[in-house]
Parts: sequence; structure tokens; C-alpha cells
Amino acid sequence: MNEIRIVSCIAILTSLLFMTSCEQKEKAGELEGKASDIKKTEFGLVIHGGAGNIYKERYTDEQEKAYKAKLEEALQTGYDILSNGGASMDAVESVIRILEDSPLFNAGKGAVMTSAKTIELDAAVMDGSTLNAGTVAGIKRVKNPISLARAVMEKSKHVMLIGDGAEVFAEEQGMEMVDNKYFFTEKRLKEIEELRAKERKEKAVSAIDLNKEYKYGTVGCVALDKNGNLAAGTSTGGIANKKFGRVGDVPIIGAGTYANNNTCALSATGQGEFFIRNVVTHDISALMEYKNMPLQQAAEELINVKLARHEAEGGVIGIDKNGNITMTFNTKGMFRGFVKDDGKKFVAFYSGGEIE
Amino acid sequence: MNEIRIVSCIAILTSLLFMTSCEQKEKAGELEGKASDIKKTEFGLVIHGGAGNIYKERYTDEQEKAYKAKLEEALQTGYDILSNGGASMDAVESVIRILEDSPLFNAGKGAVMTSAKTIELDAAVMDGSTLNAGTVAGIKRVKNPISLARAVMEKSKHVMLIGDGAEVFAEEQGMEMVDNKYFFTEKRLKEIEELRAKERKEKAVSAIDLNKEYKYGTVGCVALDKNGNLAAGTSTGGIANKKFGRVGDVPIIGAGTYANNNTCALSATGQGEFFIRNVVTHDISALMEYKNMPLQQAAEELINVKLARHEAEGGVIGIDKNGNITMTFNTKGMFRGFVKDDGKKFVAFYSGGEIE
Repeated sequence: MNEIRIVSCIAILTSLLFMTSCEQKEKAGELEGKASDIKKTEFGLVIHGGAGNIYKERYTDEQEKAYKAKLEEALQTGYDILSNGGASMDAVESVIRILEDSPLFNAGKGAVMTSAKTIELDAAVMDGSTLNAGTVAGIKRVKNPISLARAVMEKSKHVMLIGDGAEVFAEEQGMEMVDNKYFFTEKRLKEIEELRAKERKEKAVSAIDLNKEYKYGTVGCVALDKNGNLAAGTSTGGIANKKFGRVGDVPIIGAGTYANNNTCALSATGQGEFFIRNVVTHDISALMEYKNMPLQQAAEELINVKLARHEAEGGVIGIDKNGNITMTFNTKGMFRGFVKDDGKKFVAFYSGGEIE
Repeated sequence: MNEIRIVSCIAILTSLLFMTSCEQKEKAGELEGKASDIKKTEFGLVIHGGAGNIYKERYTDEQEKAYKAKLEEALQTGYDILSNGGASMDAVESVIRILEDSPLFNAGKGAVMTSAKTIELDAAVMDGSTLNAGTVAGIKRVKNPISLARAVMEKSKHVMLIGDGAEVFAEEQGMEMVDNKYFFTEKRLKEIEELRAKERKEKAVSAIDLNKEYKYGTVGCVALDKNGNLAAGTSTGGIANKKFGRVGDVPIIGAGTYANNNTCALSATGQGEFFIRNVVTHDISALMEYKNMPLQQAAEELINVKLARHEAEGGVIGIDKNGNITMTFNTKGMFRGFVKDDGKKFVAFYSGGEIE
């Protein structure tokens, strides 16, 4: 009888153990799901102005002030649209136009120069509610490539238009056209001359290797509006001294730009080739959708694990359907900022989050 | 004592039940994993020559024979390379060159014409062992765009080159250049004239809508070699009567072309815009990697569920790391075929698998 009692006790304990273990497994899954299902904000907006060799000693106080003021102006513009019930796509376009028009960033005016001393711009937008998208590459005469990308999405049946053809479409749409020289800045002319001189000296050094010393400028914005719609946009001049009609990750949906109401909106910046090969923004979304990974963890998996395998540099900003945000980069710094429904603007440049 | 016995019996039964249930769950997972882990072939190759409005009544016996012979020639070429221990990338390039050189398909010679009666070609390759890739768009003078895409991957630090710049690179690499007229065929000249006439008549009808009547020609090849390396390639003239430098899914890594030794190699054909927006080939790979879905099920999820939501047409071919293959399409037909290590060549055109 004692034996039976012992056996029954063991059986009861084992049974409880298995029940608990099974329940715990299920609860952990539930909690994980629920944690990211808590609405963090009614709306929100994240921006970046490029990731790369951005460290304190490189900028004067005056330069820091200029970057801070422009990023805050962009955030305020987006906040005003979203707080008034505007669409995330409107916020994304308006914010990126401000950054394109500023000579501080590598997009629109102030973009880096090609090896032929011209400026060739790429841009993309994606609407998370419809999965519709518009992208352009090799743009030389359209003042705001981000608005052309949006026109491609809304006014054509296509997703991607390139080169002269894209500009014919822009003219048909009555977009503001400029001479390529409009985009020129003294800073970039000096930069391209330095790069070309270095290239002649070191020969066979690729544009990408040379650019490691420079920042991977690109501007991007992701937003969640009051209706729960996500949108993403990115605009860039690509890498300085580029040749051969090189296109980076920006206008590649799933690489530099992606938005999906089921998961998140993302915009990337960095060594575009590696972002294309790793399908970075779609992979972050897929990790969230298929592995139930939170946005921050998924962004780290791509930037700090998968890209790190290629020693590739860059960063990504994102906002998910509940307003959780990420600003993840493996470079020295990334011009970045965000604002949520409380209206408090956060801006940072260097690793660690500090501005100065 | 009887009560105790009953309790202990219940406890033992409950315990066994939970143990079994837990074990079953784990075993199911294991089995699922193992089922797709069974090596099906030492090597293998799948090809497509476009999906679309391909049905028996549309082709004469003579035309059918010509398609069958060309697809078999392509399969034999790939088989010869792979059976001799050649690399999957070599098989993919050689096979696609055959299809590009044939006027039967919408790639290379015989590609569809733009609205300006020119021919503009896009192509891409991806190496599943390194995740390296090369893509080109808007090519007018390079005889074999697939070889240019491979040169971009192997001889440049870039992934994507477009337009004139890509052709300057091609010339520097000593690739075979041709006049745009080399690609012209009587059939496509007649087709573009019909399309333009229809466009004038029906106005506002987009190139995409008009093309629904035509097939979405594109050629593609995916291969697994004896070393377990996967490779994918795709080449196309895009959609007939295209304007504005339109680029479809083919040169977009993760949309029309993708390869990853951890999962599979894929090449798509169809309404490219929807393949870009749904990041089709990377999503198939992600479903395999993150949801443990078999290749065929993942391909069906994209082609028959996700694309179907947009009423988008097309198909995809794929081979996974164990030699499982898919040839999935939601159109009336897809020119397609495969060969594995037994050397038996399978070729089919229409839905259901029959050739005639």
C-alpha cells in the first residue's frame, strides 16, 4: 500500500509538473503576444537623416544646432499633420520634403555627387494599409523625388520608374522640375574632388570602401496615424562618387523601405548593397509576423546579427501598429528623432542617445 | 484506500496523457522538420518561360514542338553542367542565355517592345551560398542581360546597375554588345502595333490591363548543385507597350528573384507590380525559414492566397535545399520544366501538367 501511495504521489507530482510546464509554455506565448498588443500611442512618427561615421568631434556646435533645428522642424510638421487626424502617408511625404529641401542631408538639395559630378536621386514610399508602393531611381531633375515616388504609387499602375522615363512621367504630372545644378552644394563639390583625388592615389578602391569614411546619408520617415495606418518613405542621393547608374536599397521595396499594417513601417540607411541582399526591411516584418518577435528585437536581429555577418554598416527606423518604435544602428551615429501623441520631440545624433 | 487508488489512477492517467500530449507536440515538430530534411535528389534544375494566358487553342502543333524542344535543350544544358559537378550559378546562367537567345520568349531576342518601339531588358541573379546578387534594368544593348547581372554580382561592389551606366560597365567588362534592333522580331512589332491601336481606341487603358490578354513572358531558372548550393536567375523584357522606364519585379531581389542556401531558390513571372508589393520570393523563403513551411505550401500561400487578394496573376518556380521543387501559377498556363539527377526531363505548358 505504501508503494502504491508513493507511486500515486509521484504520478500526481509528475502530472502537476507537466501541466505547469505546458501551461507556462502557453502563457509565455500569450504574454509575448499581449505585450506587443498594448497600444502605446494614438499616433507617432520616427525620422532619420542617415547613419554612419557620425561622432561628436566631427561637428561644431553651430552644425549640431542646425541639424537639431531641422530635425525638430521635420518632427513638428509631422506631428501637426498626425495630431489633426492626417494620414501617415501625408506626414511621411511632408517630413521628407523638408529633409530633401535642406542641404544638410544626402537627399534632394545637398545630395552627394556621382563620379560624373552630377546628382542622381532615388526615393520610395509604401502604404501599409494597401501594400501599394512607388519608387524612383536615377532622378536628375525632379525637385522632390519623394513626391514623384508618391505620384508613381497613386497616379500610375506601376511601382518603379527609372531615369529619363520617370522624369517624362513627372513632367506629365506637373511636378516641380529643376536643373540638376539646383541640387549642388559647395560641400559636396569639395567632397567629390577629395574622393576623386583619393581614388586616383589609391586606385582600385571602390566607391563603397571610400564611402566608409563618409556618412551613409539618406533621409527617411515612418508614421502611424490615428486610423492605425502605417506608412514609410526614404529618399537619397546614394553613395558619393557612384558610377554606372548604381542603385542602392532605398527604391527597393523590402530592402530600404517597407510598410505593412499587420506589422510595422520601416526605413533604412547604410551600405545599400547589403540591405538589398538581406532584404532587410521585409525580413524585420517577417520576423514580427511569423516569429511573433517584437519590433526592437527583429531590428536588432537584422542590424546587429545578419548584417554584422557581412560587416555591413547602417541602421533602420521603424514604428509598429501599436506605436512601439525602433532606431537601431551599428554605426557611430545616426541622425534621428521621434514624436508621439504627447508631442515631446526626441532628437539624437550619436551612439547612446545624447545630442551633445 | 479505494479512493486513494482511484485518485492515483487518475493521476497516473492524467500524467500519461500530458506526457503523451507534450511528446506528440514535440514529435510532430520533429517529423515536420525531418520530412523536408530528406534529400530528394543530388542536384536539380527548374525553368520557366513565362506564365499567363497560355492555353492549348492558342498554339499550333508546330509552335508547341518549338517550345518543347527549346525548353528541353535548356534543361539538358543545365543537367550536363550539374551532373558533371558544375556550380548552380553556372547552370542558371547557361540555361537563361539559351532562353534569351531564343525568339520564343520575352527575354533577350524576341522580348516585347516599349511604347517607343524599343526593347528594354531587366535581369537578376542571386547566389544562395553568399546571398550575393546582381541585377540590371533598362538594358538596350547587352546581348545577354543575365550575364551582365552576373558580372555586376562578381565584378562590381554593387548589386543593381541601371540604364546607360550599366551599359558602360558592360563595355568595360568586354561583354557582347548589340544594336537594340538585334532583339526585334516581326511578332513583337505586330504585337506592339496592335496594342497601340487598341490603346488609341480604348484610351486610358493601362499597359498592365492590356497585357492581361498577353502572356507575362519572362524566363527564369533555379538550381541546386552537388555541393548543396542554390542559385536563381530571371530575365525579361517586361510588359509590352511599357512607358516611363517602368521596372518590374525581375531585378528586385526578394520580389522576382531570390536564393538562400538555408531555404530555397526562386524565380517569378507575372504582374511584376504585385510581386514587388508582396515581396513574393523573399516571403516564400521567410515562410519556410520562420514557419517551417514546405516549399510547395509556401509558394501556394503567396500565389494562391496573398496575390489572389489583389487579383494578381503569375507564377513562381523554386527548388529547396533538399531538391523539393515547385512550379506554382494561378494563370491558364506557364511554360515550365525540370530535371533532377535521374536525368528525366519534364516539360509542360498548360494547367494540369499536360503539354498537348
